[in-house]
Amino acid sequence: MFRTNTCGELRLEDKGKKVTLAGWVQRVRNMGSTLNFIDLRDRYGITQISTGDTTVKDVLDTVQTLGREFVIQVEGEVAERESKNLKIPTGEIEIRAEKITILNNAATPPFTIEDQTDGGEDLRAKFRYLDLRRNPLKNAITLRHEMAIQTRKYLDSKGFLEIETPFLIKSTPEGARDFVVPSRMNPGEFYALPQSPQTFKQLLMVAGFDRYFQIVRCFRDEDLRADRQPEFTQIDCEMSFVEREDIFQMFEGLTKHLFKEVLGLEFAEQFPRISYEYAMEKYGSDKPDIRFEMLIQDVTQELKGNGFSVFDNASYIGAIVAKGCAGYSRKQLDELTAWVKRPQIGAQGLVYIKRDSEIKSSVDKFYSPEQLTSLCEKIGAGQGDLVLILCGEKKKTLGALGTLRLEMGSRLGLRDNSVYKPLWVCDFPLLEWDEETQRFYAMHHPFTSPKPEDLEKFYSDNPAELGQVKANAYDIVLNGNEIGGGSIRIHDRKVQERMFEILGFTHEQAEYRFGFLMNAFKYGAPPHGGIAFGFDRLCALFGGEETIRDFIAFPKNNMGRDVMADAPSRIDDAQMDELYIKSCPPAKQ
Amino acid sequence: MFRTNTCGELRLEDKGKKVTLAGWVQRVRNMGSTLNFIDLRDRYGITQISTGDTTVKDVLDTVQTLGREFVIQVEGEVAERESKNLKIPTGEIEIRAEKITILNNAATPPFTIEDQTDGGEDLRAKFRYLDLRRNPLKNAITLRHEMAIQTRKYLDSKGFLEIETPFLIKSTPEGARDFVVPSRMNPGEFYALPQSPQTFKQLLMVAGFDRYFQIVRCFRDEDLRADRQPEFTQIDCEMSFVEREDIFQMFEGLTKHLFKEVLGLEFAEQFPRISYEYAMEKYGSDKPDIRFEMLIQDVTQELKGNGFSVFDNASYIGAIVAKGCAGYSRKQLDELTAWVKRPQIGAQGLVYIKRDSEIKSSVDKFYSPEQLTSLCEKIGAGQGDLVLILCGEKKKTLGALGTLRLEMGSRLGLRDNSVYKPLWVCDFPLLEWDEETQRFYAMHHPFTSPKPEDLEKFYSDNPAELGQVKANAYDIVLNGNEIGGGSIRIHDRKVQERMFEILGFTHEQAEYRFGFLMNAFKYGAPPHGGIAFGFDRLCALFGGEETIRDFIAFPKNNMGRDVMADAPSRIDDAQMDELYIKSCPPAKQ
Repeated sequence: MFRTNTCGELRLEDKGKKVTLAGWVQRVRNMGSTLNFIDLRDRYGITQISTGDTTVKDVLDTVQTLGREFVIQVEGEVAERESKNLKIPTGEIEIRAEKITILNNAATPPFTIEDQTDGGEDLRAKFRYLDLRRNPLKNAITLRHEMAIQTRKYLDSKGFLEIETPFLIKSTPEGARDFVVPSRMNPGEFYALPQSPQTFKQLLMVAGFDRYFQIVRCFRDEDLRADRQPEFTQIDCEMSFVEREDIFQMFEGLTKHLFKEVLGLEFAEQFPRISYEYAMEKYGSDKPDIRFEMLIQDVTQELKGNGFSVFDNASYIGAIVAKGCAGYSRKQLDELTAWVKRPQIGAQGLVYIKRDSEIKSSVDKFYSPEQLTSLCEKIGAGQGDLVLILCGEKKKTLGALGTLRLEMGSRLGLRDNSVYKPLWVCDFPLLEWDEETQRFYAMHHPFTSPKPEDLEKFYSDNPAELGQVKANAYDIVLNGNEIGGGSIRIHDRKVQERMFEILGFTHEQAEYRFGFLMNAFKYGAPPHGGIAFGFDRLCALFGGEETIRDFIAFPKNNMGRDVMADAPSRIDDAQMDELYIKSCPPAKQ
Repeated sequence: MFRTNTCGELRLEDKGKKVTLAGWVQRVRNMGSTLNFIDLRDRYGITQISTGDTTVKDVLDTVQTLGREFVIQVEGEVAERESKNLKIPTGEIEIRAEKITILNNAATPPFTIEDQTDGGEDLRAKFRYLDLRRNPLKNAITLRHEMAIQTRKYLDSKGFLEIETPFLIKSTPEGARDFVVPSRMNPGEFYALPQSPQTFKQLLMVAGFDRYFQIVRCFRDEDLRADRQPEFTQIDCEMSFVEREDIFQMFEGLTKHLFKEVLGLEFAEQFPRISYEYAMEKYGSDKPDIRFEMLIQDVTQELKGNGFSVFDNASYIGAIVAKGCAGYSRKQLDELTAWVKRPQIGAQGLVYIKRDSEIKSSVDKFYSPEQLTSLCEKIGAGQGDLVLILCGEKKKTLGALGTLRLEMGSRLGLRDNSVYKPLWVCDFPLLEWDEETQRFYAMHHPFTSPKPEDLEKFYSDNPAELGQVKANAYDIVLNGNEIGGGSIRIHDRKVQERMFEILGFTHEQAEYRFGFLMNAFKYGAPPHGGIAFGFDRLCALFGGEETIRDFIAFPKNNMGRDVMADAPSRIDDAQMDELYIKSCPPAKQ
């Protein structure tokens, strides 16, 4: 027993107790002669250790040798502090040190172990184990634990079984790239790491486990965009004998449970449900941030045909209203125009209308003040508001307006990370046409069922009709982030065969890749559906952060490297020989 | 909503209720004209569906088309059965069918979905999703879920955080072979899949997370012995500021919690603790089955020097007493002799003493009845008992006696799988000398600390002294199986460097493989230790089984293949090109 108590638990009631603590030296303050204060830190908090006139010389000598991050054990008596620190729970007491044992010394850490550290990102990544000592990361990892515990508690209470599915599976290249694992015992053959347990969870439904879940690692060998990881964690769920409404009830329930148990937030109302089409039209995004309004409004009819050629040539004109922004300066508007013209957004230009004491716009030449006022009235732009207008091809313009909307929301402080606005988005298209490869791709994945009312179109030979088929799929969205998505699956072998046919698989290809699932469907597959939540993102959002990296104990960088352990790395030729592979990297340049 | 109730929950109290059930057709019994019984099955049980004179024709027609494993939905009224089946919880009621909808049909399954099936092992593996419908497997998977839930409940209540560690890590070839994963973004480099999260959990201790656990998949590319899997699951745990006794308390607590919550068994007493040396001397095994006594007894002194050259030339003679087996026939003893001579055991022969009305032995020529009786008295062989004696080199003979002991225990019915006898085995040797490579290997792993009292020997240059160093390591053993093992770790950089030196690593090798851990030890590593439980085995034992395969939803076969999905498999050349590898399997023979 190295300690009787943690550094976070002693209070004034414990005064007089003999205790032993162990932890890290946060700092030592030498106040002259025998008076010293040590802030001793562990996972649970910080407790002040003190020495004074009555402290034995040994202890005083030891204190002189202590440096930051030394690991020490302290025996002493809990005493009331003279000058209390009411900002921390242990701030009313201190430990009068009677014995100090150095358990391990420490070199000076390469950056300060403080909430605001002086260490840069690369340095902190390399010394991740030190960065994890800082409160923001410690709290993130602790929150993640709590999220997992509460997820399991809820799903267990609803009769879900957590069932582990394999990590060494068959490579079925469709969608993202697989990570592969050469097999030593099966020369020339490879396992793949799962991009998700999709087929296995469907097989579990065929097996009769009607409520399955798993908090599970998944792998995708994609070029990493900011804030994507090659390995990530899902809350993966599947249910049998359900329709979409059952899924909504169950997993809205899970989300509300997490809000309540982890953040203390109650959601009495049902989450809003909107269609993919509505989301695209009104928010320019399939993952709308509904913490604020500022809906996109179609003003094509109102603004076309007045001689302004940019508008006249556009197939779509859309506007958003930024409340109270009529005072934006020329400079601010120029800057905003430059912002929407960046290639990431790609707008051709930005038209504004300021409705202040008088009405002003960048297209005054083409529209009378009355016309502009009437437009403002129509789209709800009142006195003091700013209207921002983009135009062009509809889909692209909606996307640009959506991004502009988020930006204006941020600038206006309407996107408070402690406010949570979840919703469901549904009725996605089933298929996406790819011009380059001239084929349809499954928008969700090839196991998603078409909506029952669209079954006729699903069997049509007309690509236009196929493109109209809606999927029985849904996403759950939080503050502009997709936190989960799923669908009612195909459980009929014939429908599944038709789906593979639409995707351009030959019978042999379908058989080779998904034969075992197709085969399983022969033997009594129940109707089923499910959902998967992105656990890393969910934790980050619950922690009030936009980036996931701090919510993963040991993340990879943008090149997929663990810079702490220096992985990946070269391996021996002998090891490769055993695996029947040769490494052939390109010659260094 | 496909159902109002499951097939396991309706009782006589529900009589008269209108319900909807959904599930699989276990069997249809056509009793003539309108009378039919359908056993409808789901994960929760079986409910009888009936038709009769008042049933509409549509329903009767549908019943005629039903086959085994069809998925159907039944609407009807709960009624009291005429002939009750009190063996099942739903056996007092039936559902009078008013509507039957076929949700999916089913081809005749390749084997019967019954507790005792007619399907062979290979067939069942191929159709794993059907095998999982059978009660023994369904119960095994359900038990596994419960074990995981209870493990998390206990550890969470003790302040442990579940922290996910990476799966794409650095290859550090020491011990078993790594599975490796070529990196596309880092040409010529490979990740490894973790054999355990050992280094990461130690880094988490350095990071200050003083109580960590994870139920986590691990990977080992070993030639598969019976009942070993290339991927397996551990309950992986680590604690800071602890000594061995703290670990014993905490994880004995976990084990008792699982026994109580999952099996309803209370263990009031502390688990026995024995040394490795005692285990080897008395049980011939480091994982003794203590459900029965039959200890190995050293009879070298007693039996040597009487002119029986086999004994006289042996360095060790050991005996076990099989209670009540004096009646063993010549044939039985011959068979037992052949059994111990098999290469797996490798004994030269078997000597017996039968203590019945008279005393008889296979070495009557060399020992007087008085000598044999006196020996029997000494080792506790009474009237009616059989003494079995092996001799030879001590370690090998103890091992053979240990195996014989288990065999006799089984034959005497002393190894009841519903009786649980856990214990701790500790004080293992730290190092094992390997004659072939002429070097020491870590018996546990290179991060295990030597026992404090052996530190002097640990720094000795004398291999004999090094061989005597005891490790601060421990195993938890249940019914002859190691269910967990761990150690107090080295937390001092210098001790760790000495360990690597003993293992024959150059400074560079140690740095390359474990540099990040060694580096971490510079910055204030706390004293720490941990344990990992083999979760698959633990579940199997709690389920009363010896083999793990049924406790894994989708296991691999002995060649590491998933015969259901047919993995591993070949991948495209294009995929390999992207990964900068070439496959070079040996030419087929």
